[in-house]
Amino acid sequence: MHGLMQDWPLTVDKILDHAKAWYADREIVSRSVEGPIVRTTYGQVHERAKRVSNILLAMGIRPGDRVATLAWNTARHIEAWYGIMGIGAVCHTLNPRLFAEQLVYIINHAEDQVIFTDLTFLPILAGIRAQIPTVKQIIVFADETHLGDELPGALAYETLLAQATPDAKWGGFDENTAAGLCYTSGTTGHPKGVLYSHRSNFLHTLVTMGSDVLGIRALDVVLPVVPMFHANAWGLAFSAPAVGAKLVMPGPKLDGASVHELIESEGVTFSAAVPTVWQMLLQHLRATNGKLTTLKRVVIGGSAVPESIVRGFRDEYGVDVTHAWGMTETSPLGTQSTPNAAVSKMDPEEQLQFKLKQGRAPLGMQLRLVDDEEKPLPHDGHTFGRLKVSGPFVVGEYFKGEGGQILDDQGYFDTGDVATIDEQGYMQITDRAKDVIKSGGEWISSIEIENIAAGHPKAEIAAVIGVAHPKWDERPLLLVKLRAGEQATPEEFLKFLEGKIAKWWMPDDVAFVEEIPLGATGKIDKKLIRERMKDYVLPTPAATGA
Amino acid sequence: MHGLMQDWPLTVDKILDHAKAWYADREIVSRSVEGPIVRTTYGQVHERAKRVSNILLAMGIRPGDRVATLAWNTARHIEAWYGIMGIGAVCHTLNPRLFAEQLVYIINHAEDQVIFTDLTFLPILAGIRAQIPTVKQIIVFADETHLGDELPGALAYETLLAQATPDAKWGGFDENTAAGLCYTSGTTGHPKGVLYSHRSNFLHTLVTMGSDVLGIRALDVVLPVVPMFHANAWGLAFSAPAVGAKLVMPGPKLDGASVHELIESEGVTFSAAVPTVWQMLLQHLRATNGKLTTLKRVVIGGSAVPESIVRGFRDEYGVDVTHAWGMTETSPLGTQSTPNAAVSKMDPEEQLQFKLKQGRAPLGMQLRLVDDEEKPLPHDGHTFGRLKVSGPFVVGEYFKGEGGQILDDQGYFDTGDVATIDEQGYMQITDRAKDVIKSGGEWISSIEIENIAAGHPKAEIAAVIGVAHPKWDERPLLLVKLRAGEQATPEEFLKFLEGKIAKWWMPDDVAFVEEIPLGATGKIDKKLIRERMKDYVLPTPAATGA
Ligand SMILES: Nc1ncnc2c1ncn2[C@@H]1O[C@H](COP(=O)(O)OP(=O)(O)OP(=O)(O)O)[C@@H](O)[C@H]1O
Ligand SMILES: Nc1ncnc2c1ncn2[C@@H]1O[C@H](COP(=O)(O)OP(=O)(O)OP(=O)(O)O)[C@@H](O)[C@H]1O
Ligand SMILES: [Mg+2]
Ligand SMILES: [Mg+2]
Repeated sequence: MHGLMQDWPLTVDKILDHAKAWYADREIVSRSVEGPIVRTTYGQVHERAKRVSNILLAMGIRPGDRVATLAWNTARHIEAWYGIMGIGAVCHTLNPRLFAEQLVYIINHAEDQVIFTDLTFLPILAGIRAQIPTVKQIIVFADETHLGDELPGALAYETLLAQATPDAKWGGFDENTAAGLCYTSGTTGHPKGVLYSHRSNFLHTLVTMGSDVLGIRALDVVLPVVPMFHANAWGLAFSAPAVGAKLVMPGPKLDGASVHELIESEGVTFSAAVPTVWQMLLQHLRATNGKLTTLKRVVIGGSAVPESIVRGFRDEYGVDVTHAWGMTETSPLGTQSTPNAAVSKMDPEEQLQFKLKQGRAPLGMQLRLVDDEEKPLPHDGHTFGRLKVSGPFVVGEYFKGEGGQILDDQGYFDTGDVATIDEQGYMQITDRAKDVIKSGGEWISSIEIENIAAGHPKAEIAAVIGVAHPKWDERPLLLVKLRAGEQATPEEFLKFLEGKIAKWWMPDDVAFVEEIPLGATGKIDKKLIRERMKDYVLPTPAATGA
Repeated sequence: MHGLMQDWPLTVDKILDHAKAWYADREIVSRSVEGPIVRTTYGQVHERAKRVSNILLAMGIRPGDRVATLAWNTARHIEAWYGIMGIGAVCHTLNPRLFAEQLVYIINHAEDQVIFTDLTFLPILAGIRAQIPTVKQIIVFADETHLGDELPGALAYETLLAQATPDAKWGGFDENTAAGLCYTSGTTGHPKGVLYSHRSNFLHTLVTMGSDVLGIRALDVVLPVVPMFHANAWGLAFSAPAVGAKLVMPGPKLDGASVHELIESEGVTFSAAVPTVWQMLLQHLRATNGKLTTLKRVVIGGSAVPESIVRGFRDEYGVDVTHAWGMTETSPLGTQSTPNAAVSKMDPEEQLQFKLKQGRAPLGMQLRLVDDEEKPLPHDGHTFGRLKVSGPFVVGEYFKGEGGQILDDQGYFDTGDVATIDEQGYMQITDRAKDVIKSGGEWISSIEIENIAAGHPKAEIAAVIGVAHPKWDERPLLLVKLRAGEQATPEEFLKFLEGKIAKWWMPDDVAFVEEIPLGATGKIDKKLIRERMKDYVLPTPAATGA
C-alpha cells in the first residue's frame, strides 16, 4: 500500500523558485570578471535564469543534452546553472585548471553542445576550439563591448539575454532526470564523469542544510570560495538560495587580500574552501594585521586541513572551522567534523583532535570500513581500512559506464580512500588507497607523515610516496620543498619526525625538490611525483627496524 | 536521461539504523507509565524494535496492514513505531483524548489489526473492545506483573519481546510505501485519515533538521512533550534519532512540575509542545521560583502562541521560542517563525511581532494565499485569504478517499485556515475558514479578538464566534470564562478591546460562560460552542458602525 501524500518531484528548479518566492530581494553580490563588484537579487537571477532557458531552447537544446560552463563563481554562473537544469538539460561544470588536453577529452566525452564561459577563459577555448566539434555555441558571460574578437563566433551573454523572454517552463519531469555532470579531478587516473540527478542534488541540499552539516540559515551571508566547478561548490549554489542566505561570489580573485576584502565589505558569516585558500587568507591577515569582524564559520575540505589553520582561525580570529570530507562522487559532502554530544563537552584542545578528523556521517550517508577481504573493521580510531559509502547522493555508476560496475554487492561505492573511524564515529582519512605505503604487509599513511613534515619550520610543502624495496615491498620516501632561502639535511627532517610517528614509518630517505606538483583542485599530484621519481633508488639496502 | 546516482529509497527504518550505527549509546530516557524513570539507548531500542517486527510477523501482519498505538511518549512507543514501519506495516497513532465513539469510528475505519497500548488506557479499550472486531491482539507496554486482568486477552509486551528474536529484515520496499496513519482531530467535522509514506516522513525529517526549522543537533537533549499521537510528535521521533540527540520522553505526566523536573534532571536543551503545556510550566516555575538551567529553545504550535508565553520565556528564563504552524495533513510542520535576515536585525520588541506570527515556509513547503475566487492575494501583512499548501509531505488525498478530490488543479491543498502573509514572508493565521466571521462582506478574525480579550486580567479564557445577523450576515459574539472568583460586565471587556481592534470588529455582545470547551488536542471547540449558542439572539438589532 502506498502513502497518500503529494507527488512532488524533487527538482532543483524548485529551489530557485523558492528563493524567488520568499527572498526575491536578497542579494547575490559578485566580483565580476570585468572588475567591479556587481549586485543582483534572487528575484533578478530567477528572471534571467528563465531567459537562459529560452536561449538554450532556441538553440535546440533538449532534455538530457549537455551544456557546459567554464566559469568562475558569479551570479551569472548561477543563472546559467538553473537555466540549464530547469529545462532538464545537464549542466556540465568544467574545471579551467585542467590541462587543455584533459578539457578536450572531457568536453568530447560529455558531448557538450553549448559552453558558457568567462572572458578569462577565451584563450583556453580559442586554443581547443577546433578539437571540440560537438560544441555548437560558446556564450561568453559579458556584454558586446567586452566580448572582443579573441574567439570568433562567440556570443555575448547579455545580448542574448536581452533578446530572450523570461517565460520558460521549468520542471515537470521525473526527479531522477539528470541535472549535472562533473568529472573527477583525475589525480588517480582518467577523469570520470559523475552524473547527478535532480533528486540527488535536492537531497544533498536538504542534508547539508542540517545544523550538524553546513547548517546555513536565512540570516547568513555565504561566500563560496570553493568553485562551482569543484564538485558544485559543495552544494552552496543550491543550499544558499534554499535557505535565503545572501550569496557573495568571489569571481576570479581567490587571493587572500581579495577574499578578505569581500568578507569584510559584504559581512560574510560563512565560507567554504580548500585549505590553500585559507592558508593564503591567514597569511594576508597576519601580514596586514587584518581583522575578521563578521565571519563565524568556515568549512574546509578537499584535502586534509592542517592543524595550524584550525588554530589560527580559532585563536587569532574567533572563527570556528568545520573540517569536511567528500568527493565528486558524493555530491560532494560526505562527512563533517561538527561536535557530537561527547565531543562538545571536551575542552578545546581535546575537541581540536576531533576537528582535525574528517568527521561524522549525516543521515543519508552510510559509511563502511573494510579490509582487503571486505571484512568490516573495528571503529577503534587506529585500524586503517578502505572507506566505502552508500546513499542517495553517492554515485551509482560513472557516465557512459566508465569503470564498469562500481558498487559492491551491498550497493557500496569504494571511495579509494583509506581511513580510520574512532569510537565517537569520527572518520579520518589516512591516505588514498593508491598512495598508501605497503611495508611488510602493514600500511603506512603517507598523509600523516607529510602533514607532520610540513610542520617543520623550514618546509614549504612536503609529500611522501612509497618506493619499491626488495625486502619490505615498499618504503616511504619524503620529498620536501624548502621555504625560499632555506637549506636543510635529511637528518634534520628525520629527527623532527622522531617520536611523532612509529619507528617503522620513518622514511628511508628525504629528497629536497624544487617543486611538489599540484593537480587541478590544488591537491598534491602523487601520480606525477611517482613518475618523476621512477628511477630513484633507496640509499640503504635494508629498512630501519620493523 | 536519468542521473546515475544510487537508488537509495528513503525509508524510515534507515533513520533508526543510522542512530544505531553512530549513536548506539545515546540515551532515551522515559518517565514510565508504571512510575519510575527508565533509561535505554538507541542501540537497545533498535534491537527491541526488531523484535517488535518479529512479533508482528508472527501474528500475521503483512505490508500495508494497520497496527495502532494508543500510548504516551515513551521509548517503548518508539520501539513499536519502528518495529511496525520497518516491515512495511502502517503505524496508526490513536489519540486517547478522543471520545470513545470517535476511537471506535477511527479504529474500524482504519481496520487496525493490533493495538499497542499503555496500562493507562486499558479502561478505555475494555469499554470499546466489543466494538472493534478487526483488532486481533492488544499488546500492553508492560510486563506480566503489571498487566493485570482489566482487559482479558491482552498480551504483555515484555513477555512477547523476550520470546522474539532481533533478526527481522527491514526496508527493501518502495519509498512510497505507507508508513503512518493519523486522523485529524475532528474539530471541523468527522476525523479524516492522513496516510504518510516512508518518503514523506523521511523528507519531513530532513527539512525539519534544517537550522531555520527545528535545527536540532547531536548535542541537543530533546523533550517531545507533544504526543506521538499528535501529528507524529512534530516529527521528533524521527529527527532526534536522525541527528543523534538524546531523547527525553515524558510518558503520561505533562503537568508543569513533571515537565520541569525532567528538563532539569536530564539537561533538556530543546522541547516542543502546544501552548497550554507551556502555560502550565510557566505557572509552575513562577509559583515555585523554579529555574531553567539548560533549556535553550522551545517550539510552540498547534494553536496560536500567546504573547505572554513568548515574553515569559524570553524575559524570565532566557529561552527562545519558535512559533510553528502545521496540521496533521502537513506531517505536520508547515511554517516556523525563525528570523530571516531582516528580522534578525530588528530590536527585540520588533522581532517579537514576527515571533508571534506562525512564520516562514522552508524549502519543500509551498504556500499560496488566495481569495474565494482562487485569485492570489498580496503579501502585505493585512489582506486575509485562504491558505493553500503543496509539497512532498502534504496530503494528496485522505485515507479511503474520504472527502474526495482535495487538491486544486495546481495541486494545492486547502488548509481550511485563513491567513495573512507579510512583506517579510511571515504567515499569520487569522482564523479557521469555518470560524471566520463574515460581516457585511468583510472578514473578521475570531482568533485576533479572542487573543486580545484573553489578555484581560479577569479572563481565564475567551472565544469568539459569529452569530447570525439580519443586516450584516454575521456579527462577533465574545464568550469569556472568568478567572475563579472574578465578576465583570460586558462593558469592561468592550472597553478593553477599544483601540486594539477596528471599530467594526467590536463584538455585539459579551457572554460570560462556565466553560469554554476544548477538543482532543487542546484547541477551543467552536463547533460545540456554536451548537450550545444556537438559540442565542444578539441583543441589538444593528451593529455598531461598519
Ligand atoms: N578533508 C579531506 N581530507 C583529506 N582528503 C580529502 C578531504 N576531502 C577530500 N579529500 C580527498 O579528495 C578526494 C575527492 O576529490 P575529487 O572528487 O575532487 O577528485 P579526486 O579524487 O582528487 O580525483 P580522481 O578521483 O579523478 O583521482 C577524496 O577521495 C579524498 O581523497
Ligand atoms: N501555531 C498555530 N497557530 C494557530 N493555529 C494553529 C497553529 N498550529 C496549528 N493550528 C491550527 O491547527 C490546525 C491543525 O490541527 P490538527 O491537524 O491537529 O487537527 P484539526 O485541524 O484541529 O482537526 P480537524 O481537521 O479534524 O478539524 C491548523 O489547521 C490550524 O487551524
Ligand atoms: Mg577520486
Ligand atoms: Mg484540520
